Amino acid sequence: MNEILLKNVYARGKRCDILVLGNIISKIADSIDAPAAEVIDCSRMAAIPGFINMHTHAAMTMTRSAKEDTPLMPWLQHIWKIEAQIDEEILYWGNKLACLEMIKTGTTCYNDMYWGVGIAARACDEMGIRGVHSYCMLDNGDMVKAEKERRALVRAWEESQSFSSLNIFSVSVHAPYTVCEQNMRWANEFAREHDLLLHIHLSETEQEIIDSQNKWGCSPVEYCERLGMLSDRMIAAHSLWLSPHDIELMGKYGVTAVHNVNSNLKISSGYKFPMEELIAAGANVTLGTDGCGSSNNLDMLEALKTAALLQKAWRKNPAAIPLDTLLKIGSENAAKAIGLNAGKIEEGKLADIVLIDMNNVWFTPNYDFEANLVYSANSSCVDTVICDGRIVMRGRKVEGEQEILDNAAACGERLMSRIL
Amino acid sequence: MNEILLKNVYARGKRCDILVLGNIISKIADSIDAPAAEVIDCSRMAAIPGFINMHTHAAMTMTRSAKEDTPLMPWLQHIWKIEAQIDEEILYWGNKLACLEMIKTGTTCYNDMYWGVGIAARACDEMGIRGVHSYCMLDNGDMVKAEKERRALVRAWEESQSFSSLNIFSVSVHAPYTVCEQNMRWANEFAREHDLLLHIHLSETEQEIIDSQNKWGCSPVEYCERLGMLSDRMIAAHSLWLSPHDIELMGKYGVTAVHNVNSNLKISSGYKFPMEELIAAGANVTLGTDGCGSSNNLDMLEALKTAALLQKAWRKNPAAIPLDTLLKIGSENAAKAIGLNAGKIEEGKLADIVLIDMNNVWFTPNYDFEANLVYSANSSCVDTVICDGRIVMRGRKVEGEQEILDNAAACGERLMSRIL
Repeated sequence: MNEILLKNVYARGKRCDILVLGNIISKIADSIDAPAAEVIDCSRMAAIPGFINMHTHAAMTMTRSAKEDTPLMPWLQHIWKIEAQIDEEILYWGNKLACLEMIKTGTTCYNDMYWGVGIAARACDEMGIRGVHSYCMLDNGDMVKAEKERRALVRAWEESQSFSSLNIFSVSVHAPYTVCEQNMRWANEFAREHDLLLHIHLSETEQEIIDSQNKWGCSPVEYCERLGMLSDRMIAAHSLWLSPHDIELMGKYGVTAVHNVNSNLKISSGYKFPMEELIAAGANVTLGTDGCGSSNNLDMLEALKTAALLQKAWRKNPAAIPLDTLLKIGSENAAKAIGLNAGKIEEGKLADIVLIDMNNVWFTPNYDFEANLVYSANSSCVDTVICDGRIVMRGRKVEGEQEILDNAAACGERLMSRIL
Repeated sequence: MNEILLKNVYARGKRCDILVLGNIISKIADSIDAPAAEVIDCSRMAAIPGFINMHTHAAMTMTRSAKEDTPLMPWLQHIWKIEAQIDEEILYWGNKLACLEMIKTGTTCYNDMYWGVGIAARACDEMGIRGVHSYCMLDNGDMVKAEKERRALVRAWEESQSFSSLNIFSVSVHAPYTVCEQNMRWANEFAREHDLLLHIHLSETEQEIIDSQNKWGCSPVEYCERLGMLSDRMIAAHSLWLSPHDIELMGKYGVTAVHNVNSNLKISSGYKFPMEELIAAGANVTLGTDGCGSSNNLDMLEALKTAALLQKAWRKNPAAIPLDTLLKIGSENAAKAIGLNAGKIEEGKLADIVLIDMNNVWFTPNYDFEANLVYSANSSCVDTVICDGRIVMRGRKVEGEQEILDNAAACGERLMSRIL
């Protein structure tokens, strides 16, 4: 059985040894002897749980920086034009590139919303990190398309039956305004029947709220309640424009909200994410990067910092969202949402561990490790990544990295040549 | 004479060769032969002008992450308590650590406001980057202290006469609310007489505006105008709470405003920096990190991203502050403020050049170098730093780095032991 000993590592506020047996954190103690284990000297390192990116479109790495400084509609149209040209090979390398970037920035699991779940799962298997893959239903009210989408989702679910344990299948509906009521209900029923997560874009823009009021006489969250969709299996990406009643509902049903701070800022969706209010109401608050089309990277550490800074600023309260709350949002709350036995450095948890190199300017002096991690460092402090008990990055080196960069770059050129 | 040839580097939108002779960019062409030059293969790199951090308190690296998630007044009191215990050795290593961090993140020049200009200049000389060092006057209206501060500033200025060409002396007054009118006028006169920059904290918080109205019946900017202080030698850190008339005045006199976005967010000073309005009025807009007490690092690339995201968000305009405007704010505008012949990759400019490694996930695919630099990458993409024609970092390695980290860490421990 795979055996790794993290020797003299800083974790949970002090130095300790951590033993990984198979894919589990089997023991944490002041000193552990494990003669058969591969030993990693962690005297300059800290161990944190791997970040879990709760909302992204991984393959959209292929649209990174494709259209900048552009108003929303022309920007969206351009991104759609590119996406229409993404074939299976581009999708594959887009997913591989995303996994590589996530590993480099300390993310060991991500909750994806896209198409081609088989290709995405293959990328995760090859790269060694976890993915929640969904087929994203989108019909724009076209009943023929709606029927096709149901069949496509069932096929994707069937395909997922042969997924490895690193991969989880989930149901996703793009948004209340792009999916017909029948498919919203159907997707929810399918998710319930097969005990799957239900991933959705919800209340992302102010316009969406206005349109929802006009169309259904209620907010998008209230509309979802009406359809019986609110539950703790719902992962509601954005959840930005929420009324007090929406927040109450999300708390009542234990919905998981995913804050996508950089995306919301960059495409001007808004910035007053009701983080404290959602937590107080009992909703589960998590964090995502969104796809690289809207914001440009998959860096959860950067997103954690921006999220906290912004909360402190618009609330006029430097004490808002303290570090322990923030770090839970990056890992623990997300693991809870997915039902993954991870998100904490704790005996019995899955060994999804990130080792942080503290021998650099960002952790000097080191009065407060968590503050240095979030507010001083950037993700280049991620030295080693262990996922499911396997070392997927060591000393910032990932196997096959150059091949991925070269292939993704070539795919990018091919993609652009098709739309020019 | 020192000779460096940057071979096949991406700069100003295309591939070229760049020849550095002495401390000057002497030639930029498709292909340059320079048999005596040290050649750097830049086939995977881009050249940008070094960032210029226009407002910091460098030695406050020693207060990095010293007090988090705390309301303003208790936080400030704690920081002051620490600062009172900073001796010359701690100051020295604090400055060295700051220079190291700036080099690592691509900053080749910084505009400092602190004490101990001789020590700061020594750190710059040893590290090879440029600093504008000021003695910061602060008297809180105490006339005995005010007299002492004038003498201290003159002594600091005398000391600066032996500075190397990397170092510039400037006058600084802490803020209108902490410096008596006599010293405000005196400092301005001294700066004018000796042709020095005048660095000041201005209009940082909403409370400062209220207090200013109560005390002087006008805004802090209007008060400065009344004292004859507004001119293009003024570097006004923060400039966050400005009335339309303030903005008009700053434009009229060609004042340089320094946006300190992360500091403003973290200690909840505000977030609606009037960037477009200042530019439109003719003021010079630049960027700073502030000290590591208020925000926690000196990373200009990170600050550029946050500044742009925030402008796009609160203005509800994804097209706000396009990349070319933004990048000027990080280098060119700052060079202009200081009167430094730098801030651009251009023949005849000082060779303050940062080489960006593009062979990584953040620049893959590479549809738009500037967008990838600001929105996708973090400062770990800074591979090599040249300042004044000398290579101060190569392949992310800086000479003496470990010694600085060890000494700064030890100084941090000593400092904390004094205040506990």
